[in-house]
Amino acid sequence: MSNDGATHKVAGETRVRVRYAETDQMGVVYYANYLVWFEVGRSELMRQRGLDYKQMEIETGCLMAVVEANARYQAPARYDDELIVETTVTGVRGPVVRFRYQILRADDRTLLCEGDTVHVVVGRDMKRCAMPRKYAALLSAAASHAAL
Amino acid sequence: MSNDGATHKVAGETRVRVRYAETDQMGVVYYANYLVWFEVGRSELMRQRGLDYKQMEIETGCLMAVVEANARYQAPARYDDELIVETTVTGVRGPVVRFRYQILRADDRTLLCEGDTVHVVVGRDMKRCAMPRKYAALLSAAASHAAL
Amino acid sequence: MSNDGATHKVAGETRVRVRYAETDQMGVVYYANYLVWFEVGRSELMRQRGLDYKQMEIETGCLMAVVEANARYQAPARYDDELIVETTVTGVRGPVVRFRYQILRADDRTLLCEGDTVHVVVGRDMKRCAMPRKYAALLSAAASHAAL
Amino acid sequence: MSNDGATHKVAGETRVRVRYAETDQMGVVYYANYLVWFEVGRSELMRQRGLDYKQMEIETGCLMAVVEANARYQAPARYDDELIVETTVTGVRGPVVRFRYQILRADDRTLLCEGDTVHVVVGRDMKRCAMPRKYAALLSAAASHAAL
Repeated sequence: MSNDGATHKVAGETRVRVRYAETDQMGVVYYANYLVWFEVGRSELMRQRGLDYKQMEIETGCLMAVVEANARYQAPARYDDELIVETTVTGVRGPVVRFRYQILRADDRTLLCEGDTVHVVVGRDMKRCAMPRKYAALLSAAASHAAL
Repeated sequence: MSNDGATHKVAGETRVRVRYAETDQMGVVYYANYLVWFEVGRSELMRQRGLDYKQMEIETGCLMAVVEANARYQAPARYDDELIVETTVTGVRGPVVRFRYQILRADDRTLLCEGDTVHVVVGRDMKRCAMPRKYAALLSAAASHAAL
Repeated sequence: MSNDGATHKVAGETRVRVRYAETDQMGVVYYANYLVWFEVGRSELMRQRGLDYKQMEIETGCLMAVVEANARYQAPARYDDELIVETTVTGVRGPVVRFRYQILRADDRTLLCEGDTVHVVVGRDMKRCAMPRKYAALLSAAASHAAL
Repeated sequence: MSNDGATHKVAGETRVRVRYAETDQMGVVYYANYLVWFEVGRSELMRQRGLDYKQMEIETGCLMAVVEANARYQAPARYDDELIVETTVTGVRGPVVRFRYQILRADDRTLLCEGDTVHVVVGRDMKRCAMPRKYAALLSAAASHAAL
């Protein structure tokens, strides 16, 4: 991938529509739900990069456990809003993978929330293990493009 | 139902306090969350009857999959309300177990929601299997008390 | 129901992809989440029929409170499955509206769950009120098509 | 921080038991649910300090909107675990309030997750406003104890 704005190509973009279930009595989306959308973005990014996370769990017994999550909320999402979730791989170092997210309101591209998560590859026993080679390569490729 | 108080022994009673996360923009609890409280009631009832559901899954590989759930909503629960979840085993027939629930507001015992669920015992492969004998006996005992 | 295919016009169809958040340790979707998808189906059906539920709440102060919900689970949905939610208005009588749902796995159209909900129109005070005329007409139109 | 145990007075402590709904197919608690427990801890701390958050919303029309949330996950919580949520007010400056959380497994006091959130007081219109005096005083008192 070239260096001419390559990150636009590697940021997985997916859309979600806010569910009534996701609002709270403040009339806006409850804060923990943004972490669910981060997960939606992450899954979609991996799918777009050829990494089927579901298959990875089944084939290799490896899981990507979350070790850190951070979110900054700029403006509230509301019921029925269509949102864009942009996800980037920002680092792969051994079993540790980092993602960054931006959640925008689709109709005016207002930034509502940004955040990041850190994951570590573990086995079914929740102990660290090496990331399966095939998947490591795919994620590293995504990360190096993001860094251009 | 008899007047000997038997039902007090079998109706598992547990309490939950409504979380902000469980409300929606209507200012009341979102309807799917009552099914989560049914689960809390079910777990607690089983614990009180000596049936540790967590242990059952680990020891026997058997799971209780839900095949039916019904709820009737009478009055809304609101943020910070303390609720009573009353749970009864209403039937055990082979691998099929039935529970009934009533959710009351603690401070005035207003009935907010009642419902029932039907479960079937399955293995890890989601295929029906016999309920482990020890657990079948405990649930049957609970159900026969409920029928007095 | 007639054989003219009218129901295909009225059953709102929408798609959701199963999120990791929606699974539980049984390895399948947690049962309460189907009620969230019912809501997604309901919102989408109303949108397709020209009834913007969000706007209705804002304009008229009327809400559609759930008074009953029923679900029968036939086969489990799993992480990353794409699902079809089919929704039909099955009745409108004064302030009471009924919906029916079928949730199918998209790739083989296996029926996973079917259910229904009953709603009543209420004001912000949670007391029954008449459904705003414009919205009543739209829902009745949807329901009469479903009854053909 | 002093060695006089003052922090024990200010850290609100509350307990939650892990629900089946809160697990995911990894067999552990889904990461967003820790933010829900942060909220449970926050509500309970405020209640213990004489600040009824529910009442504050009703009386003053002021809400505490979340502007930042951070969590570090050390070890997984599992179904049916009893957890301790310890919450501290770490700062009050004008309309901005900060909380810190530790979530421990009750039976061996293993630290599972720690985090913090930042909130800003807003009106129903989601615009910043001054914190009602009575509530500001209560939170400041809690924060100054935490700083001893």
